[in-house]
Amino acid sequence: MKKGTFITVEGGEGAGKTTVLMSVEQQLKERGYEVVCTREPGGVLLAERIRALLLHTHDIDMDERTEALLYAAARREHLMKKIVPALQRGQIVLCDRFIDSSLAYQGYAREIGVEEVRAINMFAVESYMPELTLYFSLDPSVGLTRIEKDQGRERNRLDHEKLYFHEQVKAGYETLANKHCDRIKMIDASEPLPKVIKNVMIHIDSVL
Amino acid sequence: MKKGTFITVEGGEGAGKTTVLMSVEQQLKERGYEVVCTREPGGVLLAERIRALLLHTHDIDMDERTEALLYAAARREHLMKKIVPALQRGQIVLCDRFIDSSLAYQGYAREIGVEEVRAINMFAVESYMPELTLYFSLDPSVGLTRIEKDQGRERNRLDHEKLYFHEQVKAGYETLANKHCDRIKMIDASEPLPKVIKNVMIHIDSVL
Repeated sequence: MKKGTFITVEGGEGAGKTTVLMSVEQQLKERGYEVVCTREPGGVLLAERIRALLLHTHDIDMDERTEALLYAAARREHLMKKIVPALQRGQIVLCDRFIDSSLAYQGYAREIGVEEVRAINMFAVESYMPELTLYFSLDPSVGLTRIEKDQGRERNRLDHEKLYFHEQVKAGYETLANKHCDRIKMIDASEPLPKVIKNVMIHIDSVL
Repeated sequence: MKKGTFITVEGGEGAGKTTVLMSVEQQLKERGYEVVCTREPGGVLLAERIRALLLHTHDIDMDERTEALLYAAARREHLMKKIVPALQRGQIVLCDRFIDSSLAYQGYAREIGVEEVRAINMFAVESYMPELTLYFSLDPSVGLTRIEKDQGRERNRLDHEKLYFHEQVKAGYETLANKHCDRIKMIDASEPLPKVIKNVMIHIDSVL
């Protein structure tokens, strides 16, 4: 049986991941590929319930390690119920956020420690690592301004974090991209949308 | 500031942990100790919400690693919001289930692997290990019969597991008790209730 292709997209808030993914999904489908486009946290029923705890728990000051464990739990469920079955059917899986989000956000920016966060995530992910990860690089102040202008977008807890936090996330992603340069490819998300989509497609074509 | 005493109680279903803990809490309070009696999973608002996902998710076949991560998340939240503050106030904390439950249930009985389950739990627990753990040892068939007779008791997903599973849990606990004999003390839960309570109090007195 042909094995599918697992591709993840990473980056800070407002980097345009969702918009680009919609276009890429469409292009790949037009070329005859079977594509599953999904996102974290969420994607399947139990993971959506965990997502609700993560993004809409405003009445409680959530402990940082609790948060990291919940993300890993949602990741595991989404992986086993949606991603792995699609890969087994030979499909292309485009996933908005995966393990690198936890490493950048919880490991680096929240300062839990990247190796500790990696340990709980490898428990969740086991051998199912993406073949390609596209990191959308963008100045956090630009990304946050985009979000503020986009009134229709769902607000969540992370959007309210301070700019400094998002700068730490960016530094974390850059460290990861340098360390895992075989898997993680940088995309300059400050470029015009058609150019970003074109660059993304070049990298995707290289693994298809 | 005087540091409190952290005591956990472990064992299979129907071993009488809850009944014994109520009596022990009462006795310790009568002797002038400040006691916090709590249970896992749950104990604080967010942990109760995670508990609800764990015990009442009947519509989904939960992945075993998702389950283990959710228990670790609930453990972390309960630990940081309830147990650690009580210990810092110098109180005695009696906790019904803690890390050894995950090691016995998920690590041994579900066969995820005890060291893998320990890794995600050490992320959750850090240095906050109990000084004393009382393991209530009981033949699982006796424990399950007790539960079936107790009509008023809340039913949950784990009660429906097969007897074989509970025998694996018992074997897991016994391995842990032998390995960590300084911390984990065996209590014969088949003895009459007053004798069980007396034995528990002897071990608790040894750490007060």
